[in-house]
Amino acid sequence: MGYKMNIKVRFLDISNEPTALINPKDSVKIGGKDNDRVRIDGKRSTTALLNVSDFVNPGEAILSADMKDKLGASDGDELNVVYASSPESVRSIRKKMDNEKLSKEEISGIVQDIVDNRLSRIEISAWLTALHINGMDIEEIAAFTVAMVDTGDRVEFDRSPVYDFHSLGGVPGNKITPIVVSIVAAAGLMLPKTSTRAISSACGTSDFVETFCEVEMDADTLKRISEKVGGVLAWGGAMNLAPVDDLVIKVEHPLGINPRAQMLASILSKKLAIGATHLVVDIPTGSGTKVPTIEVAKAYARDFMDLGEKLNIHIECAITYADQPVGSAIGPKLEARECIRILEGDKHPASVVEKACDIAGMILEMGGIINGGDKARELLASGAAMTKFREIVEAQKGNYDLKSSDLVPGEFVAEITSVKSGYVHSISNKDLVSIAKAAGAPSDKGAGILLHKKKGQREEKGEALFDIYSDNKAKLDRAKELAATYKPYDIEGMLLKRIAAPRTR
Amino acid sequence: MGYKMNIKVRFLDISNEPTALINPKDSVKIGGKDNDRVRIDGKRSTTALLNVSDFVNPGEAILSADMKDKLGASDGDELNVVYASSPESVRSIRKKMDNEKLSKEEISGIVQDIVDNRLSRIEISAWLTALHINGMDIEEIAAFTVAMVDTGDRVEFDRSPVYDFHSLGGVPGNKITPIVVSIVAAAGLMLPKTSTRAISSACGTSDFVETFCEVEMDADTLKRISEKVGGVLAWGGAMNLAPVDDLVIKVEHPLGINPRAQMLASILSKKLAIGATHLVVDIPTGSGTKVPTIEVAKAYARDFMDLGEKLNIHIECAITYADQPVGSAIGPKLEARECIRILEGDKHPASVVEKACDIAGMILEMGGIINGGDKARELLASGAAMTKFREIVEAQKGNYDLKSSDLVPGEFVAEITSVKSGYVHSISNKDLVSIAKAAGAPSDKGAGILLHKKKGQREEKGEALFDIYSDNKAKLDRAKELAATYKPYDIEGMLLKRIAAPRTR
Repeated sequence: MGYKMNIKVRFLDISNEPTALINPKDSVKIGGKDNDRVRIDGKRSTTALLNVSDFVNPGEAILSADMKDKLGASDGDELNVVYASSPESVRSIRKKMDNEKLSKEEISGIVQDIVDNRLSRIEISAWLTALHINGMDIEEIAAFTVAMVDTGDRVEFDRSPVYDFHSLGGVPGNKITPIVVSIVAAAGLMLPKTSTRAISSACGTSDFVETFCEVEMDADTLKRISEKVGGVLAWGGAMNLAPVDDLVIKVEHPLGINPRAQMLASILSKKLAIGATHLVVDIPTGSGTKVPTIEVAKAYARDFMDLGEKLNIHIECAITYADQPVGSAIGPKLEARECIRILEGDKHPASVVEKACDIAGMILEMGGIINGGDKARELLASGAAMTKFREIVEAQKGNYDLKSSDLVPGEFVAEITSVKSGYVHSISNKDLVSIAKAAGAPSDKGAGILLHKKKGQREEKGEALFDIYSDNKAKLDRAKELAATYKPYDIEGMLLKRIAAPRTR
Repeated sequence: MGYKMNIKVRFLDISNEPTALINPKDSVKIGGKDNDRVRIDGKRSTTALLNVSDFVNPGEAILSADMKDKLGASDGDELNVVYASSPESVRSIRKKMDNEKLSKEEISGIVQDIVDNRLSRIEISAWLTALHINGMDIEEIAAFTVAMVDTGDRVEFDRSPVYDFHSLGGVPGNKITPIVVSIVAAAGLMLPKTSTRAISSACGTSDFVETFCEVEMDADTLKRISEKVGGVLAWGGAMNLAPVDDLVIKVEHPLGINPRAQMLASILSKKLAIGATHLVVDIPTGSGTKVPTIEVAKAYARDFMDLGEKLNIHIECAITYADQPVGSAIGPKLEARECIRILEGDKHPASVVEKACDIAGMILEMGGIINGGDKARELLASGAAMTKFREIVEAQKGNYDLKSSDLVPGEFVAEITSVKSGYVHSISNKDLVSIAKAAGAPSDKGAGILLHKKKGQREEKGEALFDIYSDNKAKLDRAKELAATYKPYDIEGMLLKRIAAPRTR
């Protein structure tokens, strides 16, 4: 369409997608408007979004810093700029908008263009919205999963089978990962666990594991530790496994959506990339989580198992209780302490012990061990899991002699008490997460919440419901304010509602 | 959620949406990630998208230039920055994603937030995608229209009724506007016509009208000229009528969508804002236009009339032929010349004369004039329309004695000839538009295409099919290349396909 022109470039880190700032006079010459694409030819060629701006002089362009390597160019170079049409994958996005089924090639085209930064946020947003509304069938999701794996690295183990588990998340305090991995590895099976940091939650698994050992490692290190020790507690983000996710999350987050197809493909692609042959999926179910009811949970379980068949992974699902936090602690150091106490032999909080042993038991049974749950409890009680945990921590450059008491939460503490007596009728996960985040979690490691009461327990007026911990006085105050506003505990008498019998005349 | 911090600001025109570049260290403190929102408190407060960037130092922020006035701040000011949650309207967008009907309040919330730059491109893209897929019912579209009007200015005329017409567009060479306006005004009715510049076409009405008079005027000037002369040929973009459109188009354009609800509301809001009481909508129908078939055209006509009833505008629709360009000329000066020739008395091209007189006739009949089409042809033939046209041109600071020969197209011309003999079987509107744009239209006023043959006409090998005009040699060459690649004319023998009768044994 447009006109090719020579332009003097300068690189600045000014945008989170490839962008070319060009003077209005030049944009008319090029024949492009805001959000159109231009191709720029350096040693190599790349495309960028056009941003018409008076900030640059005619004949000059400011390019976002990420384009420097792509072009093989330097500040002051004169490069050719020309109007570029949208990538082919925009047509595939249009097809999904019109509720058509996409082919394997169309799906991998979209994934590849997202990874290569050829699709803008506008287009990725349209893609996710179309996925949210029109969805994908199991065949498309399987192709989507494979496309995600293909755009990243893979880990190839010399040991087989490879066990794995994944929790859909959404429930705070879900600190079972180190316990499950330690039990399974203690039983002689290999579980190379990669976890995430919090996206919108108060504490992801990697956020608390990194309080006692290193979680950032490359794929070779993950392989070496897993094969030697049987387990690992890595942060998946440091490896280039299905990297499309990070780009997609940036757009999902402001929209507050996580389309089913995207979620399923994203989880399974990471498992495929790590070579998992057996997978347990934990589906926390309850109000305020991604999965509000048992019916929805069953539908997800069905999806996972159908996909497992197509992708050749043996998958089993666990629907778990998530109407309130798992255990008592929320926040990095608090969760790490509670988790290690259980490995040390503490029987409390029972909800953490039970959930970890049940999940570990399912994995053990996949590995041919009968009565997996009993075996898991045995390995925990005997200290075998703790020994395995120490080996993992040491392999990840932590202290072999680590004790739960080494983990000291934030020095600023506020006790939140009940304004009335009664029974704990409900606890809002969402509100507790907001309060913990206001206190500084997950970036402030000492920040978080310690619950003193769980659902169904009796509470007297003035007694503590929970403590807020923070590393910072101002954040503690803000968290206290939120606690007063949100009132995450609902305290009622045992008699919730009185239904009178119909009067007889 | 996050932490309030004091930050030193600097303003740069670096983004086409309100953006705050903040150092990674500070973004952790604030508790925000890329594409999250922050509120910034200057003399006034405003929100911006967070862009985590090493380009700024800790303790500093670079804000997009558009925020300077909004904040009432200057370079070097220390302002408060705090994490801000998404505006309420994001919830309404989510509702439309889930195919729920939106209330009047929800719709106006979305429109207001787009106008105020509170919704990002990611969110506007999700909104348009949801509209494209799930649509709106007539009641929602009426509310959408009113919301668009309410976020802009209105023109209040002292004369009534106010006649108007609008073409859905998509057909090149549609230069009827000055002829229609001149005929209607010559009949004593008032038609204050606002037009647009090209978005993706080769020449919008304002693009060619501005070759012979000024089209940029404020609402007061539009009112004064319309009331005095009876007609005006203004560019709507200079007035603040339903300004949300400009922001939405920037996102629609890369996606290549124009959701029905958005299109209807956008057209009618501009007509409501100008106080139209009677409206004729021209629906060009044919392959390569927005409206491919008569069935689709009828559905649009029904929508327009239903909306007219709800919004209290009397609407009639004309379904017009658009399988090939209207008339022979495409491009600013070429179209202006062809248009003025007809006002001067030329009977050709007949397609332009017929279409202009038919549309003008419908408007005259709405105004109570019987046999409107005949009356329109009379006013054109008698020179009354030309006199009225001269008055309009003069009122818009053009030359009263304007002649068609004053308009001289580009000096660089290429004749495109046929490679075979036969009949013109089809002409691709889309390809001609691409070629005209490559030649420089609409920004280069002399650029464009002049057709020598239309559909059904006989063509000998080596005869001219069309000429390309350009103000610039390099662009002409590029347009010639495109013409060779696209081959916009399809020449066949009269016998297109021979169907053999079934053989009898």
